[in-house]
Parts: sequence; C-alpha cells; structure tokens
Amino acid sequence: MQEIEGVRTWRGMTVADLVKGMQGCAFGAGRLAKAVEIYEEMLRADTTKFIAIAGAMVPAGMRNVIAQMIREGYVDVVVTTGANLVHDIIEALGMHHYKLHTPDVNDIELRKQSVDRIYDVAVQDDAFEVLEEFIRSVFDDFRLDRSYSIRELTALIGERLSDRDSILKSAVDRAVPVFCPAIADSMIGLHAWIYKQMRRFHVDAFDDMKELVDIFCDAGRTGALILGGGVPKNFLLQTALVAPPREDGREGFDFAIQITTDTPENGGLSGATLEEAKSWGKVGTGAKAVTVYCDATIALPVLFAAVQSR
Amino acid sequence: MQEIEGVRTWRGMTVADLVKGMQGCAFGAGRLAKAVEIYEEMLRADTTKFIAIAGAMVPAGMRNVIAQMIREGYVDVVVTTGANLVHDIIEALGMHHYKLHTPDVNDIELRKQSVDRIYDVAVQDDAFEVLEEFIRSVFDDFRLDRSYSIRELTALIGERLSDRDSILKSAVDRAVPVFCPAIADSMIGLHAWIYKQMRRFHVDAFDDMKELVDIFCDAGRTGALILGGGVPKNFLLQTALVAPPREDGREGFDFAIQITTDTPENGGLSGATLEEAKSWGKVGTGAKAVTVYCDATIALPVLFAAVQSR
Amino acid sequence: MQEIEGVRTWRGMTVADLVKGMQGCAFGAGRLAKAVEIYEEMLRADTTKFIAIAGAMVPAGMRNVIAQMIREGYVDVVVTTGANLVHDIIEALGMHHYKLHTPDVNDIELRKQSVDRIYDVAVQDDAFEVLEEFIRSVFDDFRLDRSYSIRELTALIGERLSDRDSILKSAVDRAVPVFCPAIADSMIGLHAWIYKQMRRFHVDAFDDMKELVDIFCDAGRTGALILGGGVPKNFLLQTALVAPPREDGREGFDFAIQITTDTPENGGLSGATLEEAKSWGKVGTGAKAVTVYCDATIALPVLFAAVQSR
Amino acid sequence: MQEIEGVRTWRGMTVADLVKGMQGCAFGAGRLAKAVEIYEEMLRADTTKFIAIAGAMVPAGMRNVIAQMIREGYVDVVVTTGANLVHDIIEALGMHHYKLHTPDVNDIELRKQSVDRIYDVAVQDDAFEVLEEFIRSVFDDFRLDRSYSIRELTALIGERLSDRDSILKSAVDRAVPVFCPAIADSMIGLHAWIYKQMRRFHVDAFDDMKELVDIFCDAGRTGALILGGGVPKNFLLQTALVAPPREDGREGFDFAIQITTDTPENGGLSGATLEEAKSWGKVGTGAKAVTVYCDATIALPVLFAAVQSR
Repeated sequence: MQEIEGVRTWRGMTVADLVKGMQGCAFGAGRLAKAVEIYEEMLRADTTKFIAIAGAMVPAGMRNVIAQMIREGYVDVVVTTGANLVHDIIEALGMHHYKLHTPDVNDIELRKQSVDRIYDVAVQDDAFEVLEEFIRSVFDDFRLDRSYSIRELTALIGERLSDRDSILKSAVDRAVPVFCPAIADSMIGLHAWIYKQMRRFHVDAFDDMKELVDIFCDAGRTGALILGGGVPKNFLLQTALVAPPREDGREGFDFAIQITTDTPENGGLSGATLEEAKSWGKVGTGAKAVTVYCDATIALPVLFAAVQSR
Repeated sequence: MQEIEGVRTWRGMTVADLVKGMQGCAFGAGRLAKAVEIYEEMLRADTTKFIAIAGAMVPAGMRNVIAQMIREGYVDVVVTTGANLVHDIIEALGMHHYKLHTPDVNDIELRKQSVDRIYDVAVQDDAFEVLEEFIRSVFDDFRLDRSYSIRELTALIGERLSDRDSILKSAVDRAVPVFCPAIADSMIGLHAWIYKQMRRFHVDAFDDMKELVDIFCDAGRTGALILGGGVPKNFLLQTALVAPPREDGREGFDFAIQITTDTPENGGLSGATLEEAKSWGKVGTGAKAVTVYCDATIALPVLFAAVQSR
Repeated sequence: MQEIEGVRTWRGMTVADLVKGMQGCAFGAGRLAKAVEIYEEMLRADTTKFIAIAGAMVPAGMRNVIAQMIREGYVDVVVTTGANLVHDIIEALGMHHYKLHTPDVNDIELRKQSVDRIYDVAVQDDAFEVLEEFIRSVFDDFRLDRSYSIRELTALIGERLSDRDSILKSAVDRAVPVFCPAIADSMIGLHAWIYKQMRRFHVDAFDDMKELVDIFCDAGRTGALILGGGVPKNFLLQTALVAPPREDGREGFDFAIQITTDTPENGGLSGATLEEAKSWGKVGTGAKAVTVYCDATIALPVLFAAVQSR
Repeated sequence: MQEIEGVRTWRGMTVADLVKGMQGCAFGAGRLAKAVEIYEEMLRADTTKFIAIAGAMVPAGMRNVIAQMIREGYVDVVVTTGANLVHDIIEALGMHHYKLHTPDVNDIELRKQSVDRIYDVAVQDDAFEVLEEFIRSVFDDFRLDRSYSIRELTALIGERLSDRDSILKSAVDRAVPVFCPAIADSMIGLHAWIYKQMRRFHVDAFDDMKELVDIFCDAGRTGALILGGGVPKNFLLQTALVAPPREDGREGFDFAIQITTDTPENGGLSGATLEEAKSWGKVGTGAKAVTVYCDATIALPVLFAAVQSR
C-alpha cells in the first residue's frame, strides 16, 4: 500500500507541482491528482478526446478555458447543453455576464430591472434580444428543402462568430463537432419555435447520433472528460452502447474523468459512479476512470493548468 | 411569528395527519408540509398542472404513483426524460427491474452477466432487446411524407401499450401530453438512429414548444411539480419566458413545487432555487413556491398520499 | 432477485402502509423501508437501543417525537449535542422557537432585533437569559468536594424540568442516561465557564465513557439509531472499540440505522457508511445496517410512526 | 457590476496566478478567490488568526500544510477534533496512513486484516497500540492533586513529539494553543477512560473556555478559517457570544472563511452560512466573510499556496 504523503506548498508554487503534491493525498485531492494522471495518459495514447459539459460553466467563467482546450487540441468532440451555447453566443456577440458576488439578492427586484440571475451571476434581458436577432439570421439562411442535424446547426452558428474565446467559434476553427441533443431546451429552442411559425425549416431530433457513433467507432482509444451530469453525460456515454467491441475485445470508453458535485446516493444518472457505467458497457471494464467530487469551476482550471505543464 | 410545534405520531397514524403535524416543524418537514398545502391550493384553483420528472423515478418504483396521479387527474401535462420513458415501456412490455438491495456490487461481474445497474436497481440486457423490437414496430408505422413532433411520438408509443400502471399509457388514456425534449438521449434515440439507416422518418427537434406554450397560455392558473432538475425542469419553466403576461399582469407559473436533492451552491440549474426562477419570470413574483430538499422516492409518495386524503 | 414493485397510495393511507409499499421500491424509499424493518427486528430481539442525535433536531420540531420515543421505551440511551440540550431546556422553561418560513432573511436586521437564526427557525436572545438563570441554579447545588460526570449533569438538569415533552425530563423519568461529550460546545458550556470564575465545581471530560461502555457490554443485543453525524455518531460507535467480543464472537453493534444528508464522498465521519464502520469493528460484520440519505425531520417521524404501528 | 472574466491557464502557471484568474469567475472559483483575498487582508491587519479543523484532514494528507501554516505564523489558535489529534500523533510516532485508491473495498475483509478504513485511507490496528502506549506515558506524568484543562493536555502531548510535520508539535513550538472540546470522542478519550480505572487524574470539561475567550478579547482583529463544521466550528464561533463588543462597537469575528461540503439546506450548524452566524453575533455584521463549498483537501492547499505567494 502507498503511504499517505501530505502535500507541501511554497511561495511561487506552480499548479503542476501542487497537483504532484496531491498524489500523496487521499479524498478529493487524491482524486484530482489521479484525474490529471489519467488525462496525461489519455494524451500520450492515440485517444479521441470527448468532453461533456453540463452546468452553467459559461456564465461562471469557464468559457475561455474550454475554448482554449479546444484550440490547443485537448478536445476532439464536444457534447453540451443549449444553455452553455446560448451564453457562449451572448459573450461572442459582445454582451456580458456580471458578478453579483452573492446569490443572496432580491429576485423580485432583479425581475423589475430585467436582470436574470444564475446563482451569483447576472445577465440582462437585452443580451437575449441581441441573441434572438443573431439566431434568426442563422435560421434565415436555412434551406427548406432539406433537414439539418443539430450538430450542423451548432457549426453554422460557430461559423458566424469571430470571438476566439468562443467555444463554438473555436470548435469550428478546429473542426471539432459540437453536439447538443437537448438544444430545444434553451433560448435557441424558443427562438426556433417562434421562427418556425413563419418559416418551416427542419432540424432532426435523432440525426446527430450517427456522426457521434462513427467518431467513437473510428477512434483508436476513447477518453471522456465529463463536467457535471445531465444529458451531456448520458448522451456521450450511451454512444458506447451501440458501438461494436474492438478487435481486442475492448468496449466502452478507455478513459473517463468525471468532475461533479452530484453524489450517487440519490440514484440519478448525474451522480452515478463510473463503476456503474461499467455494468452497462459505457465505460470499459479495464478503463482508467476517476470521479472528482468538486465544483468544476475550481477543479477544471486546476486540472487543465496541470495537464498543460507536463 | 408562528411557534414551532413539534410533530407527534401514533399507532395507525395516516400520512395526511403526519403531514399536518409537520406544518408546525421547520427544515425539511416544514417544507414538505408547505408543498402539500400549495398542491392543495393548486387543486382548488382552476389550475393546469404540469409535472417535470427527472432522475430514475421509474426504475426506483415511482411509476405507479405517477401513473396514478395522471389517471386521477392530478396531472395535465408531463415533461420527462427519455430514460423514464424507456423504463416505463420496459415494464409495460412485461420486463422488470430488480432490487439489488445495495449499490455496493461488482459492476464488472454484472457486465459479464448482462445486468445493467441503476444505483441499487438492476435491469437485464434482454429487456432492451424487447424494447428495441417494440420501438421498431412503432417506427414502422411512421409516414415518411410528414414530420412528427416528439410529443406525437410519445403518444404513438402510449397508444400501443395496455398496462394501466404505465405512465405513457395512462397519459394517452387521459389525453395528457408527454413531452421529452431530450428523447435522443435514450435507448429510444439509439434505436431511432439505427432504424433511420434503413428508413428515413422525421422527428423534429423543435416542434413541441408550440403545443406546450399554447397549453400554458390557455391555462387560467399554472402549477409546476418538479421532480429533480435537468432538462425537464428547465424545459417546463422556460415555457413561461415566451408567454405574454396575463391580463392581470401575472407572468410565470402561479404555483411551483420542487423536490430535489440538488442544492443551489454549485450554481447549476438543477439545484437552482425557485426564487432564482422569479428573476427570469419563469415563476411568478407572487407565486406560491417551495423547494423540498429530499429524495423524491420518499417525498413524492408522502406528498401524494397526503394530497389524496384532503 | 426481488422485482421492483411500485408503491401505491390511497385516501386515508396510514404511514405504516406507505412504508410497507416502499419495501418494493429502491433508492431512498427502499432504504427507509429497510430501516423500519431493522428497527422492528431490533425491538423484537432483546436489544439495548441507543440513539445518537446531531443536527438542530429540537429547533426544527423533532423534540416531541424523540421525547415520545424515550417515554414509550423505544430508546434506552441518548447521546447528543449541547445545542439539542440547550434548545430542549429553553422549550421546557416555556420559551419558544419560531418559524421564519424561509432562510432568506436579513441576518443583520435579525441581529438588531436580538433574534438568532437556525436556518428557517428563530429564537430570541431572552430565551438564553432564562436559560442562564436556570443553568446557574443547577450549578449552585453542585458540591465542590467531588467531581461530576457530564451524564450526571444532564440528569441533574432533567430532574429540574417538568415538561413531559422534554427530552431531558423524559430521559430522567425513564432512567435513560443522556450523554453529551461535547457539552462545553454549547451555551451550557459558556455559562459553566462564567460560573466557574466564582465557584470552581468539577465536571470531568472523560468519566462518561465508563458508564456507556458498561451499558454496551451488559447488553444482549445492541442497536444504534443515528440521526446526523458529528460527535454523537462517533462517540456512540467508538464504544464498541473497547468492548470485548461477545461469547459468540459478535463485536460491534448488532443493528445500525443512520439517517443523514451527509454523503461519504468528502471522507468525513459524518457521512461515512456503516460498511466503513465494520472495518473498525464499530458495527458488527454480521449486523443489520442501513443508511437513509434523507433530512431527518422527514424520515424520523415516518420511521417512528411506522414502527409504532406494527 | 463587475464583468465575468474567464480564467485562462498556461504552462508553468503558479497557483497564485490561477487564483488571480479565478477572481473574474463566479460559483466556487469566485468564492475561492475571495477567500484568498480575505485571508490576505486578514494578514495585513493586526489579526489573531484562529483555525477550526473538522473532518479527517490528517488521514487525507493535510497534516503538513496545517503544520506549515502554524510554523510560518499563519495560525495563532487551533480548535480541532480528537480524531485529527490522534492521527497526527500516530504519524508523529512513525506509524502511517495508506492510500486504498478507492473506497470500494471489502470492509469485512479489512476487519479480518486488522485494517481500519477512513473513506479511501487505511490505518492498521497496531498504530493504535503504539498510540495507547504513548498516551499512557503522558498520563503517567499527570499530577493527581490538580485539574488539567484539555488545552494543557494537548500541549503536554505536543511537547513529547519531535516530528516537525506534526500539528501538535508545531503548535507547541510556536506557542499556539490547541483546543479540542470533544477530546473524549476519540482514541485519546478511550485510553483516558481505561487509564482512569487505575489512576484518577482529572481533566476538566469546561476550563478551556476561559483561555479561548481571553485570547479573543485581547485580539485587535479576529479571523476564523473554518475547515468543515462540527464542534470545532461552533466552539470557535461561540467564543464571540461571551465577548463584550469592542470600543468601536464591533462584535463577532472580523474575518471568516469557511471551506465545507455541507450545505445549509439540512438546517445543521455544519452547513450553516456565515450570514446566519451574523444573526447570533458570532460573525460581525461588518465582517468580511465567504464560504467555499469545496472538498478542503483541494481548496486548502490552493488557498495556502496562493496566500504564501503574495
């Protein structure tokens, strides 16, 4: 058995050294250090790297880090929520999110001021007006004689953006597909519905699956970095359910890192362990996998800064 | 201020009396009692009653209660996840879920035995084979010259089922629409994709919104019972964002009850307070609202049994 | 494997029937039903029943239920926190706790009004003045030529109370010892310190252990009902560490039920599983044990009402 | 309002720069950055710095960091649990804790091997035998004609240790008092009880309060760093309840940082907000305060490494 060796810190210590120190620790510190090890091994192997992004990561300030991960080749495929796309677009269009510094505010007062709250983040209604105009301009170019996949829609949006810090723009620049199965569950979905009252374009609910499964099957090794749970987590992991086993018998993801504040005890998929995913074949029985129970706004920058430095 | 009056219990006590006793308590007991009060007020008013169902409620055994709520007129609209539909269908087709009695099992062993785990629940792979055959038979009847909404798909499935304890069957019998915006994120989505390789039917990603918004706008009063978070919670609440204010100025849901184990501190939508929803106009600034922080498999039966008894 | 059988509810349903229905469920409902089964088995066997009470159970309104459990013979030994004793005494002295109905209040305003908040419960400063006077009168009678154990102190307090709903009074009436190892961590501790500036009585920090261990060793079977974690949980369970194995080789508690909202992932003792306790010998390797992850203000009344009815 | 500015990372980034980047973020990242700011302000002011340590921080590997904080003058007073002292002594005596790398182990097997588990950490029974011998040697020197405070006991233990990485030894070397109100709730308490069967020394349950209150009253400014909840948190904060207001009217702690995974929703003190503490006067109404909802094994090293670097 490995002895616990407490972490030490010093003036000017790098994030990479801090995480190295955490390798001797247990609980969250030990899990975070293991996540960095797995991510590094994932990068050394010929691995197709998937990221699932749930939670309000963009409003909280994780947009640049994720865009950076995409631009620097740490991510090959993105699965996320409509909300993260909406807030990414809002920033790309020059609108902003603001720090309330506390969630203890008067929401009825905010309502009067047309300010919408996301925990301790504020966004103004006019940001969504700018979004609406932009989204409509995207739909304007849709051909009516064909059907689009949601992934095509996210790409068409990204192509129209110029902000290098944008997740969607960075993805387009790096030819990284962005999947968003529940896109109807977002402002984009609301505007799509309003728009379709006038002009009936078609976006298919099921067409993304093929492309995602093909990428999974064509990959040598597969790795999943899962931020939060929800639809992105399950949609990404279920891909493995329809992929045939590899020649060497491997099935499911070869590497899996989950950063979440959900715990398994409520039985939901969001907090489900990666061990549970092995019973389904979503994660390989021989996979390297770890769950870090931590607010992703803390664990993700630490993980990425450490991985960059090796 | 109201004095705390401790709850008392007795032999043969009814659930309704227990909840009445909890009205004098604080913390979770007080919140649960308040949820029952709000639900009752919701039933007295001319209220259109929406339920959002996330989490593995069906595998855990909440299927009958939810079906019962639909059959007895306590629910007018359902928004849920693909997983809950999949497991509802599996049961309706005569396959079963099983109690493991503990989540501490060997998942690699389960994988070898073709058993899939959902926390402390097990389901066998062959259940999904029966599901596949059934789902394909539904798609067989799809016309190719038109597009379907997801809500139409859930109704077409429900019509084919005969199990009175089924959520989908009960919904069809009571003309209760079932919305499932992220249906692609489920076994149904996987089979839809496979099926579409041969025969290209079309299900639109955005068409449900119109019907849901119309129901919301036509309603006198609106009430939301939200189990867990995820897409069902947000998809239901965002309906209020595109509905014009009522003549009397009301906007958002008039009643809202949330039962969840997520807490607000991670900033995600799942654990977001109903107060936060007021800043968006999703829940009315004058709405009756309460969040019960509790495993829904405990709180839902208590809530419904108490509501039934008044 | 046992099939999941969904719970059904009906008008006038008893708590006992609800819990019976939960036996067919999984997740929290299944665990709660199992807790009731274990408690009943505990009562059938010749079991010495210990209860550990952490968390602000008294301010939240659980005082009567716990007092009732003691009076009706469902509890033989109590281990709790100074805070629960303080608030039990305050109520016994005719002062009250009040419902704020929400935790979202202005605490600086409360401070100005001399109102102290416990989540959504309020208590006024003058309640603590009445407490101080009472506590001093207890200390007045202390002899200075001997040392007292904390358990003796809790009994001397209980003897002075007349409120049948008081935990301390009920315990004295039923000769149920009340242990409170961290009593210094409470208003009682603060007043003891102030009082000792004038008159140096002695209360020993370590003397309780002997009596608790003796009770444990003299018991045929031992059962622990643990509400929350903290010192009460550990102090109760560590008793088993110094008790010799039984003639039949049993060691640790024979029955253990834990009701908590803490989960194991942070590594702390409060959320530690009862399985972990088996590695220490605190809970028997053959013990009947279950953890219910639920707000105790909901789960405790349900559990007790169900147990009473069998 | 301050715009959200996403954090960026780079190869060789320091922890201090990472936290600086988090200042532009919200959710956990923003709270962690604020905690560092408050800690720095606390150090600039003439502040007496208290630390409350709950949870199994020592087994998890936080021992060195805490000892380092004490040695380098970042901590003036310690309040902790018996468990953390016990595991600190075990390491100081040359025994070790070991990484299990996962909590999913067979606890009954561990029991057979005399291995005790703390989540994903293991410690062997013989470590406690070495502890017992050591503790007895401490008690051997106790005089029987006087009473000791718990703080005196922790100092007498520290004096006997030579390990610079020990919290107790570091505290003695820096004349930092270590308070442990619930010391009976630990192996030290168990051995004290056994020892007292033969030789009746006396440790008073209430005597520590005076010294702690005196330190608080003599301080210019007061700052609390709270790791986890439990007795250490409350015992530290309640000190402010008996301290008279300062000449300038200040009362309660001037600075407060809480790092915890507990949330307020269950109503317990461990997860209670620092705002709630203001209603009691435990934290000043004008205090700088923040709660970081994070595993302390991750947040503490990040916080301290950042603070060291400024």
